[in-house]
Parts: sequence; structure tokens; C-alpha cells
Amino acid sequence: MQLARVVGTVVATRKEASIQGLKLLVVRPLDEEGRETGNAIVSADAVGAGPDEVVLIAAGSSARQTEVTDKRPVDSVVMAIVDSWSVGESTKYKK
Amino acid sequence: MQLARVVGTVVATRKEASIQGLKLLVVRPLDEEGRETGNAIVSADAVGAGPDEVVLIAAGSSARQTEVTDKRPVDSVVMAIVDSWSVGESTKYKK
Amino acid sequence: MQLARVVGTVVATRKEASIQGLKLLVVRPLDEEGRETGNAIVSADAVGAGPDEVVLIAAGSSARQTEVTDKRPVDSVVMAIVDSWSVGESTKYKK
Amino acid sequence: MQLARVVGTVVATRKEASIQGLKLLVVRPLDEEGRETGNAIVSADAVGAGPDEVVLIAAGSSARQTEVTDKRPVDSVVMAIVDSWSVGESTKYKK
Amino acid sequence: MQLARVVGTVVATRKEASIQGLKLLVVRPLDEEGRETGNAIVSADAVGAGPDEVVLIAAGSSARQTEVTDKRPVDSVVMAIVDSWSVGESTKYKK
Repeated sequence: MQLARVVGTVVATRKEASIQGLKLLVVRPLDEEGRETGNAIVSADAVGAGPDEVVLIAAGSSARQTEVTDKRPVDSVVMAIVDSWSVGESTKYKK
Repeated sequence: MQLARVVGTVVATRKEASIQGLKLLVVRPLDEEGRETGNAIVSADAVGAGPDEVVLIAAGSSARQTEVTDKRPVDSVVMAIVDSWSVGESTKYKK
Repeated sequence: MQLARVVGTVVATRKEASIQGLKLLVVRPLDEEGRETGNAIVSADAVGAGPDEVVLIAAGSSARQTEVTDKRPVDSVVMAIVDSWSVGESTKYKK
Repeated sequence: MQLARVVGTVVATRKEASIQGLKLLVVRPLDEEGRETGNAIVSADAVGAGPDEVVLIAAGSSARQTEVTDKRPVDSVVMAIVDSWSVGESTKYKK
Repeated sequence: MQLARVVGTVVATRKEASIQGLKLLVVRPLDEEGRETGNAIVSADAVGAGPDEVVLIAAGSSARQTEVTDKRPVDSVVMAIVDSWSVGESTKYKK
């Protein structure tokens, strides 16, 4: 999984039938220091994440292993909201 | 998923039997500002996307979770046409 | 999928039993202008592609969705021979 | 698989129901000399790995092939603790 | 698939139960000229490859399509030993 921040949303009315009702978020991956890194990804929301929240995203077929994404053409899912993470003795992020 | 723009089409008459009838699009991934980024990808069209449209593409096994791509050797699918996306308070794209 | 050119072949007599009989091609991915880009990939041939032909390759589990690659340890397949592709109004390649 | 070092942990109380109880580790991939390389990854722990341990991680659908990750939205798993590895005649790491 | 050279081995006694008995090799991907390229990968051996041998590796779920890796948390497998490969008229490698 990757640490990421929710930075935006995508609206798409004309889409594959099976993804009706999915909330699509724009997320930016974070490195272990909490800095944004790499390109934005569009990720389906499985946990009710809000703007600016730090989350975990899972990719590939694993992104379909949630109730809302099951059997849908979705290759990235927000599957957790992060409370905190630490590296060594140092807390890098706390909600 | 990735934001992308439809930039072209591919014609292939000699192909694996199971992909007969699929429309193959050349798409360019977009970053969150709407700039083209990275190499072109050939993606199967599941939503009737036209030239220059901004779309969402899904990759890997998730690309097979649409009616037209089911069980086919297809690793990228256009599964939505984007109406708009925003980052923070700013609308980055509106159709 | 990716545009690619067939540039060579691989011979391997000692191999996992299930891939006996598969033809293994060395292919080079192409960008939308038809220039070779990135590293060579070894891809199983599902369509009878010949030397120098421009083809489409599919990766990952999708590479196993052809008759010759089904249930085999193969992560790339040549699944179409390209007749032509265009970007905007411009034909970039014609066989 | 990739060699990696366990460098931290992630706490997430609000998450997809199916990942309750999973321990989430921050890991850094290692090159063959044991140097950290590339970005941190969040990986589910299937073997009881502790801080600073050198481990093997598996990605993608293969990350779901353990008892604790089966059918869960998890795309990286720590599936072994490394005792040693060698390159040519040289032992690069020994626990 | 990728061309690769076997450069080492990994020993791991504490591991997910399902991978007991698998031989784990350190391999380096090769470009089409036979030069090592990119980072080392740890790959399960399905064909009895020895040190310095040139092999083919398959990644992702395809790495589980061999008898020894079936249903195991393994994302890379050595599935063939290469006898030779050629690019155009030129033989780049012969065992």
C-alpha cells in the first residue's frame, strides 16, 4: 500500500455501468516523511475519506477486494484512513 | 485510475480472436493540472469515448471488469468520461 | 496495451512444462511517434508475428487471456498485429 | 519479491472492515548491497517481523496468498524474514 | 517476461508456511544486449537454475502459474533457462 493525501475529486457521469455510485478521489502519494511524491492517482473511496485526509491506497486486483469495488473496473482504492505513522522512534504524522 | 486524454486510434485486423470488435484508443495520461505526462497507452474503449475527450483509464486485471473486455487479453480500459475534476478549491478541468 | 516492434527471438529448451511450444519474441515498446522506448521485453506470440512487425502487447494477468497462454507463467503477450495508428489527424504508422 | 527493511508502523482505526487486525509496516526496499532504495511501501505483516528486520515482500495479487491477507485489499505483504543473502561468493547480509 | 541473470541466493527460515521448500534466487534483469539493468529481484526457482545462468522471469500473478509456486505469495518466478537470444541478424547470447 502507499501513504497518500486526498487532494480532490473527479466527476464522471458517463461511465461503465458497474461503477455507478462510486466516489472517485484524486490522491497524491506521500513518502515516509509525508511529502507528496509522484503523480496524482484517481482512487475509489471505500472508507468515506474527506479532503486533505491522509489515507492508505491499494492498487491492482487488490483494489477490488472491498465491498464497494468488488468486480468493478477499479485499479486503486482508498482502504484506510491513517491515524499516525512512525519511522524508527519518530512519529512522522499524527492526525 | 489515471486521468488521460484520447489522442488517437489503432487499427489491427490480425489479432487474438477474443478481441474482435473492440475499439482501441491511443491515450495520453494527464497529471492533476491536465498536462500530458508519460508515454502513450493503447486502451480498450468501454464507454464510447471520442477524440480529445478526457477520460479515466483502469489498468491490469481491473481492465477486464467491463462487459466489453471480460476475459480478453486487455490490460487497459477507458471506463469513464470525465466531466470535471478539482484539486482543493480549484476546478482543474470542466468539460 | 503498448505499441511495440518485434526485434528478436529467445530460445529456451529447459523451461516450465506448461510453456512448451510457446514462441517467445523480443519486443521493444514504441512511443506514439513509433520511436523505440524503454527496455526490451520477452513476449509470448499469440498471433504469428514476424520480425520487424509492429504489434500490440498486453501485460500481467491479461497476458494469459489467449488460447496459447491460458494458465501459463507468461506476463506479456503479443495479441495483435498493428495495421496503422493515428494521433489527431496524423497517421503515425501504416503497414 | 524484493528485499526490504522494516522501518516503521502505520496506525489506522477507520478502515475497510476486512483488514481489521492486520499489522501494517512501513518498509524500505533494499538493493542487492543492502542499501535502501526507492520509496517507502506500507506492507501487511504475515510473519511477525520486528523493527529493523530484513524481510522479503511480495506485491500485487500475490500479496493476498497468505492466511492473514486472503481476500483483503492488500497489495504488499511481508512473507519472509531474511537470514542471509549472497551475491556470487560474497555474503551481503547475515542476520 | 524479462531476461535476467542469476547472481545469488536468499536464505529465509522464518516465512509464510506456504513457501516452505521454495528456492529463492537473486536475479538481475538484462537488457537486449545482455547488460545488467535495474535493481535486483528475488525470484522463486521453478526450473533448477544455477549461479550465473541466464534465465527468463515472469512477474505478478503469472509467477504463480507453475507447479512449485501455485497459490503461494510469490510475485516473480524463474520459468525458463535461456539457450540463446538474437536481435535482428545478431545472436546476442548463446549458452
